[in-house]
Amino acid sequence: MTAELPRKLSRRSPKGEQLRSIMEDLIDAAKPGDPLPSERELAERYDVARMTVRAEITRLAAEGMVERVQGRGTFVAEARVAQAAALSSFTEDMRARGLTAGSQVLGQETEPADDVVARRLGLEPGTPVVRVRRVRTADGEPMALEEAFLPAERFGALAGEDLEGASLFTVLEERFGARFPAADQQVVAVEIVGEDANLLRVAPGRAGLKFHTILLDDDERPVAYAWSLFRGDRYEIRLRQERRP
Amino acid sequence: MTAELPRKLSRRSPKGEQLRSIMEDLIDAAKPGDPLPSERELAERYDVARMTVRAEITRLAAEGMVERVQGRGTFVAEARVAQAAALSSFTEDMRARGLTAGSQVLGQETEPADDVVARRLGLEPGTPVVRVRRVRTADGEPMALEEAFLPAERFGALAGEDLEGASLFTVLEERFGARFPAADQQVVAVEIVGEDANLLRVAPGRAGLKFHTILLDDDERPVAYAWSLFRGDRYEIRLRQERRP
Repeated sequence: MTAELPRKLSRRSPKGEQLRSIMEDLIDAAKPGDPLPSERELAERYDVARMTVRAEITRLAAEGMVERVQGRGTFVAEARVAQAAALSSFTEDMRARGLTAGSQVLGQETEPADDVVARRLGLEPGTPVVRVRRVRTADGEPMALEEAFLPAERFGALAGEDLEGASLFTVLEERFGARFPAADQQVVAVEIVGEDANLLRVAPGRAGLKFHTILLDDDERPVAYAWSLFRGDRYEIRLRQERRP
Repeated sequence: MTAELPRKLSRRSPKGEQLRSIMEDLIDAAKPGDPLPSERELAERYDVARMTVRAEITRLAAEGMVERVQGRGTFVAEARVAQAAALSSFTEDMRARGLTAGSQVLGQETEPADDVVARRLGLEPGTPVVRVRRVRTADGEPMALEEAFLPAERFGALAGEDLEGASLFTVLEERFGARFPAADQQVVAVEIVGEDANLLRVAPGRAGLKFHTILLDDDERPVAYAWSLFRGDRYEIRLRQERRP
């Protein structure tokens, strides 16, 4: 992007708001990796304080629209990968974006279910479950953390499967003949902190989307429970909503 | 909640992970506002380092599950308000939770659409639009920021409506006879910074859910575009997903 800077600011509305709208237009017209004009350039062009420009860039960075690179400037961020209303696996989501999904297995073992996991799977606390903890990658870059829990009675052999490169959905469907036509999902925004930030290679405190997913079989019984934590700058949700009459 | 502390830690898996599971169980069984056991109490009870306990509480706070109150301790957070797959207004979402919705109007005027707003409404840039910017409250507490844009040609009179206590959906439906049976929505996780943090009364950097919503009429034409920024600790999304065969 060669900074094609638009119109001058008017005196009608707050400069911060106008700058925001101009910069969103700029980003909208640009490609990921394109540089933004410098703070000084923007401040001079629109005759606003450097602080006003900086506050606006901070907001754009907080929303994952631009990325600041120390000593180099500010760049338009990678587009986010979208999850739509259809129940799709991480591998399928990445493929839809032209990215190659991978994983790094952090843990894979059988253990007694704690109260929360047990309730989500409709089991008694202490019932053995297989737990699989992975970092999910897109083209080799960390995108999400994921921890899945499945009843060991049915899925015990999963503890021995090679899940480094595999889609869990595919393994469940093809190796175990499992069916899960639907899922209930809860999504919250969280700050990524501690070890999670290290694993996802983001600065502590960056925003993330945390999903709690319960896969359901044809009789609406839980097949598996998983939580996953996605980098907020790389993932989004697309929804189609219908209004009840 | 009188801290009914569960089982001892085993030597089998990392203490941090076990503590996490125990604390999630505790919170799960507790009510909003209930105190958590102190860091020292937890550290002594499970024979883990204070730092391990603190890291775990930091993570729970980052996820909005607990709230730290300076000098008083850590408390189970208020439950989140859920948005489900049906297209519902803020007012309807709050009512479903037994909360009273309100607003504080920050701006309400007619102005030319910038490129992003124009594209989302299917208009030429510069076309006059009514812009309404509000803080949305639940029982008087700030819950979300919202900025809505509507073509002035049809909704010009909206600039003069009293929207302090009103549901925008209701005004559009009843006053303007507008119909919007569906909406396209994009949801991202962001950090709440700057003036937005002040307006929502959260510490800068806390996580939020940002929605971009386009209301569509019976012919799938845009009726209105709005973005809204919800406090991550007070709002969540509930989804029902179906797996394509």
